[in-house]
Amino acid sequence: MPRPRLEITYCTQCRWLLRAGWTAQELLTSFPGDLGEVALVPGVGGVFTVRLDDDVLWDRGEQGGFPELSRLKQLVRDRVAPDRSLGHTDRAAT
Amino acid sequence: MPRPRLEITYCTQCRWLLRAGWTAQELLTSFPGDLGEVALVPGVGGVFTVRLDDDVLWDRGEQGGFPELSRLKQLVRDRVAPDRSLGHTDRAAT
Repeated sequence: MPRPRLEITYCTQCRWLLRAGWTAQELLTSFPGDLGEVALVPGVGGVFTVRLDDDVLWDRGEQGGFPELSRLKQLVRDRVAPDRSLGHTDRAAT
Repeated sequence: MPRPRLEITYCTQCRWLLRAGWTAQELLTSFPGDLGEVALVPGVGGVFTVRLDDDVLWDRGEQGGFPELSRLKQLVRDRVAPDRSLGHTDRAAT
Protein backbone atom coordinates (compact mmCIF):
# COMPACT_ATOMS: atom_id res chain seq x y z
CA MET A 1 0.00 0.00 0.00
CA PRO A 2 1.52 3.35 -0.95
CA ARG A 3 2.22 5.81 1.80
CA PRO A 4 -0.42 8.55 2.01
CA ARG A 5 -0.17 12.03 0.57
CA LEU A 6 -0.65 14.96 2.91
CA GLU A 7 -1.82 18.13 1.21
CA ILE A 8 -1.84 21.67 2.62
CA THR A 9 -3.84 24.19 0.61
CA TYR A 10 -3.15 27.75 1.72
CA CYS A 11 -4.28 31.23 0.70
CA THR A 12 -1.55 33.16 -1.12
CA GLN A 13 -3.49 36.43 -0.71
CA CYS A 14 -3.35 35.96 3.06
CA ARG A 15 0.39 35.20 2.87
CA TRP A 16 0.06 31.89 4.63
CA LEU A 17 2.92 30.22 2.74
CA LEU A 18 5.25 30.40 5.74
CA ARG A 19 2.60 28.89 7.99
CA ALA A 20 1.96 26.13 5.45
CA GLY A 21 5.68 25.54 4.90
CA TRP A 22 6.34 25.34 8.62
CA THR A 23 3.46 22.89 9.07
CA ALA A 24 4.76 20.75 6.20
CA GLN A 25 8.26 20.57 7.68
CA GLU A 26 6.97 19.78 11.18
CA LEU A 27 4.87 16.90 9.85
CA LEU A 28 7.74 15.55 7.74
CA THR A 29 10.00 15.75 10.80
CA SER A 30 7.51 13.78 12.91
CA PHE A 31 6.51 11.27 10.20
CA PRO A 32 9.48 10.89 7.84
CA GLY A 33 8.74 7.24 7.06
CA ASP A 34 4.97 7.35 7.12
CA LEU A 35 4.06 10.03 4.58
CA GLY A 36 4.62 9.53 0.88
CA GLU A 37 4.75 13.27 0.36
CA VAL A 38 3.60 16.59 1.69
CA ALA A 39 2.28 18.95 -1.00
CA LEU A 40 1.93 22.71 -0.67
CA VAL A 41 -0.93 23.93 -2.84
CA PRO A 42 -1.42 27.67 -3.45
CA GLY A 43 -5.02 28.79 -3.13
CA VAL A 44 -7.08 31.92 -2.60
CA GLY A 45 -10.01 33.21 -0.55
CA GLY A 46 -8.78 32.45 2.94
CA VAL A 47 -8.36 28.73 2.42
CA PHE A 48 -6.25 26.68 4.82
CA THR A 49 -7.04 23.00 4.45
CA VAL A 50 -5.06 19.92 5.45
CA ARG A 51 -5.91 16.63 3.78
CA LEU A 52 -4.49 13.16 4.21
CA ASP A 53 -5.36 11.45 0.93
CA ASP A 54 -9.12 12.10 0.69
CA ASP A 55 -9.59 12.66 4.40
CA VAL A 56 -9.95 16.32 5.46
CA LEU A 57 -8.04 16.70 8.75
CA TRP A 58 -8.53 20.44 9.02
CA ASP A 59 -10.54 23.06 7.16
CA ARG A 60 -10.20 26.63 8.39
CA GLY A 61 -13.61 27.49 6.96
CA GLU A 62 -15.26 24.68 8.92
CA GLN A 63 -13.25 24.85 12.11
CA GLY A 64 -12.87 28.60 12.27
CA GLY A 65 -9.14 28.90 12.75
CA PHE A 66 -5.81 27.24 12.28
CA PRO A 67 -4.91 23.83 13.63
CA GLU A 68 -2.81 23.72 16.74
CA LEU A 69 0.27 21.80 15.60
CA SER A 70 0.18 19.16 18.34
CA ARG A 71 -3.48 18.48 17.51
CA LEU A 72 -2.65 18.18 13.82
CA LYS A 73 0.15 15.72 14.59
CA GLN A 74 -2.28 13.65 16.62
CA LEU A 75 -4.77 13.62 13.74
CA VAL A 76 -2.04 12.42 11.38
CA ARG A 77 -0.66 9.91 13.88
CA ASP A 78 -4.12 8.42 14.50
CA ARG A 79 -4.27 7.61 10.78
CA VAL A 80 -0.71 6.63 9.82
CA ALA A 81 0.69 5.13 13.05
CA PRO A 82 -2.12 4.79 15.61
CA ASP A 83 -0.05 2.83 18.12
CA ARG A 84 2.80 5.31 18.25
CA SER A 85 3.28 7.80 21.08
CA LEU A 86 4.10 11.37 20.14
CA GLY A 87 5.92 11.88 23.43
CA HIS A 88 5.54 15.33 24.91
CA THR A 89 2.95 16.25 22.27
CA ASP A 90 0.61 13.61 23.66
CA ARG A 91 1.36 14.45 27.27
CA ALA A 92 0.84 18.18 26.79
CA ALA A 93 -2.60 17.60 25.32
CA THR A 94 -3.95 15.55 28.22
CA MET B 1 -4.23 23.12 -18.92
CA PRO B 2 -3.57 22.39 -15.24
CA ARG B 3 -0.68 24.19 -13.61
CA PRO B 4 2.38 21.96 -13.28
CA ARG B 5 3.49 20.08 -10.20
CA LEU B 6 6.96 20.70 -8.86
CA GLU B 7 8.40 17.84 -6.84
CA ILE B 8 11.43 17.88 -4.56
CA THR B 9 12.68 14.47 -3.47
CA TYR B 10 15.20 14.71 -0.66
CA CYS B 11 17.22 12.29 1.46
CA THR B 12 15.93 12.06 5.03
CA GLN B 13 19.10 10.25 6.17
CA CYS B 14 21.12 13.28 5.01
CA ARG B 15 18.74 15.63 6.84
CA TRP B 16 17.97 17.66 3.75
CA LEU B 17 14.39 18.47 4.75
CA LEU B 18 15.24 22.05 5.67
CA ARG B 19 17.02 22.54 2.35
CA ALA B 20 14.06 21.04 0.48
CA GLY B 21 11.55 23.05 2.51
CA TRP B 22 13.44 26.27 1.91
CA THR B 23 13.64 25.54 -1.83
CA ALA B 24 9.90 24.81 -1.93
CA GLN B 25 9.03 28.07 -0.22
CA GLU B 26 11.36 30.11 -2.42
CA LEU B 27 9.79 28.66 -5.58
CA LEU B 28 6.26 29.22 -4.29
CA THR B 29 7.18 32.80 -3.43
CA SER B 30 8.53 33.42 -6.94
CA PHE B 31 5.79 31.51 -8.80
CA PRO B 32 2.63 31.66 -6.67
CA GLY B 33 0.29 31.65 -9.68
CA ASP B 34 2.25 29.35 -11.97
CA LEU B 35 2.71 26.18 -9.96
CA GLY B 36 -0.18 23.91 -9.14
CA GLU B 37 1.70 22.56 -6.14
CA VAL B 38 5.12 21.91 -4.71
CA ALA B 39 5.50 18.46 -3.17
CA LEU B 40 8.16 17.44 -0.66
CA VAL B 41 8.93 13.74 -1.04
CA PRO B 42 11.07 11.96 1.59
CA GLY B 43 13.70 9.68 0.07
CA VAL B 44 16.94 7.94 0.98
CA GLY B 45 20.44 7.32 -0.37
CA GLY B 46 21.56 10.88 -0.97
CA VAL B 47 18.78 11.79 -3.36
CA PHE B 48 18.00 15.43 -4.11
CA THR B 49 15.93 15.69 -7.25
CA VAL B 50 13.71 18.51 -8.53
CA ARG B 51 11.08 17.68 -11.12
CA LEU B 52 8.55 19.84 -12.92
CA ASP B 53 5.91 17.36 -13.98
CA ASP B 54 7.97 14.71 -15.81
CA ASP B 55 10.87 17.03 -16.54
CA VAL B 56 13.92 16.57 -14.28
CA LEU B 57 15.29 20.06 -13.56
CA TRP B 58 17.97 18.92 -11.17
CA ASP B 59 19.37 15.59 -10.03
CA ARG B 60 22.14 15.71 -7.44
CA GLY B 61 23.42 12.33 -8.62
CA GLU B 62 23.76 13.56 -12.19
CA GLN B 63 24.89 17.11 -11.53
CA GLY B 64 27.10 16.39 -8.53
CA GLY B 65 25.75 18.96 -6.12
CA PHE B 66 22.81 21.09 -5.13
CA PRO B 67 21.15 23.59 -7.42
CA GLU B 68 22.01 27.21 -6.92
CA LEU B 69 18.63 28.78 -6.14
CA SER B 70 18.79 31.50 -8.80
CA ARG B 71 19.64 28.83 -11.41
CA LEU B 72 16.74 26.69 -10.26
CA LYS B 73 14.36 29.65 -10.50
CA GLN B 74 15.56 30.27 -14.05
CA LEU B 75 14.96 26.63 -14.96
CA VAL B 76 11.41 26.86 -13.59
CA ARG B 77 10.78 30.27 -15.17
CA ASP B 78 11.94 29.03 -18.59
CA ARG B 79 9.19 26.41 -18.44
CA VAL B 80 6.27 28.14 -16.70
CA ALA B 81 6.69 31.81 -17.68
CA PRO B 82 9.46 32.10 -20.31
CA ASP B 83 8.83 35.78 -21.03
CA ARG B 84 9.03 36.91 -17.42
CA SER B 85 12.09 38.59 -15.94
CA LEU B 86 13.28 37.39 -12.56
CA GLY B 87 14.75 40.80 -11.80
CA HIS B 88 17.97 40.70 -9.84
CA THR B 89 18.14 36.93 -10.14
CA ASP B 90 18.56 37.27 -13.91
CA ARG B 91 20.94 40.18 -13.66
CA ALA B 92 23.16 38.46 -11.09
CA ALA B 93 23.60 35.45 -13.35
CA THR B 94 24.83 37.37 -16.37
